[in-house]
Amino acid sequence: MQSSVRGQAMAAEIGEQPAVFDRVLSEGAPAVAAVAAEVARRAPRFVLLTARGTSDNAALYGKYLLEILLELPVGLTSPSTTTVYGARPALSDCLVIAVSQSGGSPDLIESTRVARECGALTLAVTNAPDSALARAAELHLDVLAGPELSVPATKTYTAQLLTLYLLADYWRGGRGEAARELPALAADLLDRDDEIGALAHRYRFPDRMVTTARGYAYPTAREAALKIMETSYIAAHAFSGADLLHGPLAMVDSKVPVIAIVPAGAGGLALRPVLDRLTEQAADLCVIGSPEAITRGAVGFGLPGGVPEEVSPMLEILPLQLLAYEIAVGRGLDPDTPRSLAKVTETH
Amino acid sequence: MQSSVRGQAMAAEIGEQPAVFDRVLSEGAPAVAAVAAEVARRAPRFVLLTARGTSDNAALYGKYLLEILLELPVGLTSPSTTTVYGARPALSDCLVIAVSQSGGSPDLIESTRVARECGALTLAVTNAPDSALARAAELHLDVLAGPELSVPATKTYTAQLLTLYLLADYWRGGRGEAARELPALAADLLDRDDEIGALAHRYRFPDRMVTTARGYAYPTAREAALKIMETSYIAAHAFSGADLLHGPLAMVDSKVPVIAIVPAGAGGLALRPVLDRLTEQAADLCVIGSPEAITRGAVGFGLPGGVPEEVSPMLEILPLQLLAYEIAVGRGLDPDTPRSLAKVTETH
Repeated sequence: MQSSVRGQAMAAEIGEQPAVFDRVLSEGAPAVAAVAAEVARRAPRFVLLTARGTSDNAALYGKYLLEILLELPVGLTSPSTTTVYGARPALSDCLVIAVSQSGGSPDLIESTRVARECGALTLAVTNAPDSALARAAELHLDVLAGPELSVPATKTYTAQLLTLYLLADYWRGGRGEAARELPALAADLLDRDDEIGALAHRYRFPDRMVTTARGYAYPTAREAALKIMETSYIAAHAFSGADLLHGPLAMVDSKVPVIAIVPAGAGGLALRPVLDRLTEQAADLCVIGSPEAITRGAVGFGLPGGVPEEVSPMLEILPLQLLAYEIAVGRGLDPDTPRSLAKVTETH
Repeated sequence: MQSSVRGQAMAAEIGEQPAVFDRVLSEGAPAVAAVAAEVARRAPRFVLLTARGTSDNAALYGKYLLEILLELPVGLTSPSTTTVYGARPALSDCLVIAVSQSGGSPDLIESTRVARECGALTLAVTNAPDSALARAAELHLDVLAGPELSVPATKTYTAQLLTLYLLADYWRGGRGEAARELPALAADLLDRDDEIGALAHRYRFPDRMVTTARGYAYPTAREAALKIMETSYIAAHAFSGADLLHGPLAMVDSKVPVIAIVPAGAGGLALRPVLDRLTEQAADLCVIGSPEAITRGAVGFGLPGGVPEEVSPMLEILPLQLLAYEIAVGRGLDPDTPRSLAKVTETH
């Protein structure tokens, strides 16, 4: 898995995302429609999402989708309550969705198996249809991202997002219309790698960063922080805009760069007071967002207009993946093989 | 609210915690028993917890309690889905618990009001019985911590934990027996402030830290990181032991101090592989934990033996509150009034 050129696999996999979007929308949609129909038929009243790492950020996006579009109560599980403490919750009327790139993490397999025994409708969303997790769940969706060799997940993350989006949209009776333009929009964004290269220069030296967003974009802030941590070893810390004001704002000064994700829509609007507070205390602010929002930052990267907010996370993360890659390569690191990490992490 | 001596209010409020525990156990228990009886009678099938900041860490502890002791599916809400996106979820058979020190944050009041309209049984857990949040919920529990003047919450946090513990224990038919020794055990721990003073010297200079734990102790890791961020402006980052291995471990090297909370019990045992990995990569490890576990770290602080794991979070956090205080004062900062923060944070 050692690549001869630093970050070669990560760069290639970032670049594949328009094609992966296209594949999920064409080849993946029928399976998603079938699973959504079965889920709708079973009419769960509560949803629990289970995941770790990057997939946990995709699960958080799924939480927003299901809370807002399906108006269901949704929780993210703490897998240890079943795998470490042996809890056997009563889960009839519950849908449990396990999200995992490899489908191989023992704690997810075990907690999915237990959830199924406890009466939940279980669905695994993985990039590995032959995995133990896919077999443990009653239903399975393949995110169709193809083999991912770089340790930092990129195309599997956005493929998970799109699969979860289509699931939610079909479940509520849609047909994924709002996602149709994703392949073209993603290709346009990735063509702007020169802009990201320039931005990466600004982050050549800091060893701390903060990312922030609200609502649908909050998973993007978390995933961006994780990518930057994994590849560049920067202490990148994500906060929802509301939580940032409840304490962590104290540690942000002009030497801690802040990246805010501010798409058009209600979540972006709700972040405005946070941007004001950051500006007041002279934070170094970069805005990834709508053309109007990026004027709030010292630097910025404009997202395309006309994209529904619930679809935007599949685009917002692309410049941030590129940024993580560029910062790492600029620091002489190999983002494909971060120190201390393996591609499949086995936690119990 | 400016104190004449740096950190005077925070130090006093940390010191009050044995008395607050005693008050909750004696004066608070009857109200908790009555609320628990009503909750048990209504027999919710799903629980949602809503909170921000320090109270969100108390809510996370509540999540573990209810998942493990009551074997219920539990979620932490994203308040923005109702307050920003206007979702109106179907919440019959749901218990929604809002946890807040001040009871004054508009987003919690609004999301509690909406939850009640949507059919949930609502319970507010606050330190402000006359607050708008207490009035918005059908049921209310006062955590009886008394006025808290220091911006970083300490005694209100542990009072929230104990109130949630008693709620869970009465709900399942107990009488809070396992918490009886808390006042005496807490007083013993706080008497060991000289040990914490020595430990604070070790953290005189770093601007990054990592805290980690699993299970019941994970909220302690998060709350410790928040206290250290608020008071000393260190980028203190909490990870569950499992999540740490899924990416963030890459940024931990010998210059990033790690504090692990490792109580006796299943959660502490489950963290052992994480401690091994940290030791392998020469992390600077401090263990707050059982006498056996602290030998794993370069430095440590021993917790009393014989305490059930679900009660331990009310003790584990005490040395970490003292540590946050000592680091801040050692750096010439006033932990009572962190820059950029107000006591009541109004988020929408």
